[in-house]
Amino acid sequence: MRVAIAGSGAMGCRFGYMMSEAGHEVVLLDRWQEHIDAINANGLRIDWEGEDRVAHLPIMRPEEATGDFDLVICFTKALGLDPMLKAMQSVLKEHTMVLCLLNGIGHEETVSKYVPASNFLLGTTIWTAGLNGPGHAHLYGSGTVALQNTDGTDEGVAAAKRIAEVMDAAGLNTEFSANVKHAIYRKAALNGVVNGLCALLDCNLQSFGDTVAAAEVAPVIVSEFAMVAALEGIEMDQEEVNAYIRSIYSPEAIGEHYPSLHQDLIQQHRLTEIDFLNGAVARKAKAAGLRAPYCELVTYLVHAKEQLLGAK
Amino acid sequence: MRVAIAGSGAMGCRFGYMMSEAGHEVVLLDRWQEHIDAINANGLRIDWEGEDRVAHLPIMRPEEATGDFDLVICFTKALGLDPMLKAMQSVLKEHTMVLCLLNGIGHEETVSKYVPASNFLLGTTIWTAGLNGPGHAHLYGSGTVALQNTDGTDEGVAAAKRIAEVMDAAGLNTEFSANVKHAIYRKAALNGVVNGLCALLDCNLQSFGDTVAAAEVAPVIVSEFAMVAALEGIEMDQEEVNAYIRSIYSPEAIGEHYPSLHQDLIQQHRLTEIDFLNGAVARKAKAAGLRAPYCELVTYLVHAKEQLLGAK
Repeated sequence: MRVAIAGSGAMGCRFGYMMSEAGHEVVLLDRWQEHIDAINANGLRIDWEGEDRVAHLPIMRPEEATGDFDLVICFTKALGLDPMLKAMQSVLKEHTMVLCLLNGIGHEETVSKYVPASNFLLGTTIWTAGLNGPGHAHLYGSGTVALQNTDGTDEGVAAAKRIAEVMDAAGLNTEFSANVKHAIYRKAALNGVVNGLCALLDCNLQSFGDTVAAAEVAPVIVSEFAMVAALEGIEMDQEEVNAYIRSIYSPEAIGEHYPSLHQDLIQQHRLTEIDFLNGAVARKAKAAGLRAPYCELVTYLVHAKEQLLGAK
Repeated sequence: MRVAIAGSGAMGCRFGYMMSEAGHEVVLLDRWQEHIDAINANGLRIDWEGEDRVAHLPIMRPEEATGDFDLVICFTKALGLDPMLKAMQSVLKEHTMVLCLLNGIGHEETVSKYVPASNFLLGTTIWTAGLNGPGHAHLYGSGTVALQNTDGTDEGVAAAKRIAEVMDAAGLNTEFSANVKHAIYRKAALNGVVNGLCALLDCNLQSFGDTVAAAEVAPVIVSEFAMVAALEGIEMDQEEVNAYIRSIYSPEAIGEHYPSLHQDLIQQHRLTEIDFLNGAVARKAKAAGLRAPYCELVTYLVHAKEQLLGAK
């Protein structure tokens, strides 16, 4: 298979390296020039469970990609997916499958601008990876991938299973699962509660958990996620999700943690992924003639805060 | 008439003094001990348009009031109204009229716990007043009062007109107006847009006016105020109110100003009046089987921020 890694940070390097080791032709795509230069000069250096390795994988900016690909594995940030796919549009062919392993929801809206729904695969992974610096990955431990087609057809299921088999054979412990969308919605609902609100209230998870917002606002946001999930045939157990969210507030869990959106917006004044959490729910509800007002308002307020902080 | 001033800060001192000068028996009620002590020791000192005056008015804590009153003029903060009326409950008789000149909406819920709806008058005023310190008011310039009954009866109108005549005869330029509730809702809608949101976003009016929140959130909040106003027979012109709100953002207007709720919450870590702005709209909507979700969420987030800041 000819495989493009769209977004070749730490996780992209892991997946690209493992697919390449399994005999596939892998091209890394990224926009980080020091990373590109380092890999072009010295190959991709890897600390593999304490063992130094070097992989000679081609890396380039997405607009420089040529030919066509059987599989594109997307590891961009949510905001980077659209510009990435746009830049590599000429190499997305009729048979190119696009697998998104990003957090958040609503990426099918982005991907559908470039490939048909039958080519879109959604996945989750618990693999990890890190970068020591440009061109130098450290890859420790194990993980799994679950992926699913989203077009609702038997052909789609068959295509997804084929991709899962190929990735599994490369050691990526990948399986087809009909529950991927459910898992993605469940995680997105958690993030849809804590990310925007901890940023707007400027607090960590434990402090948030002690407020009236955790008690009164969180269940309404979960109900809005459940409403749009139901439109896509996914049944969310709201009680279970609410209990899951409450479980993270304690200092024994991750209560001292500031969610990533707080880090992006409040600490680093960066544009956020709110449009792929609460914003996606608001859009999906509106498109169906419904309303998700709490998600709407949280999205507007986060965007307002981005404007006030001059986020980029 | 026997008149109690419930909340005898600067404005209470003005109204109490002018009613007393017109021959009414006035009792000042307050909880600020230095203020009470100063007035008991030296009388109420007044700088009246540059002329020093002294008024010997009785002042006490509300639980110390005795006898009964024909009129109670309320000048507490919104959060202080309930404890004030509760403390003076024994002197609120069948014939005691209660006039509220507080900002915000929903005070009828509070007053109705202590007197029947037929005794409740709602008013607005543009009189001003200041305090130089405990027991020392400065009273400059002129103003007006408009007041209205809220019980919808002809007897209520007649009673309101009687009170207006008495206050007008005391020089308070007071008239009965059937538009008081409309004026109160219009001002509350403005405050319902800018107070909570400028506090949550930590910005002044001009900066707020440049955000997506001013463009997208403000009209929804105004529509929620209009919805509950309509339940009370008040028709708000939403276009006009939105234009009115937009007009205050410019630096030539009051754009550099931080709304009072920002001052209370963010600058001074005090409990806010949100329950008498957005919170009142959310409650009134819910009581009518409707929803005002933006007002609901703003109220919860402001209360959450109060908790996080340890506001008192």
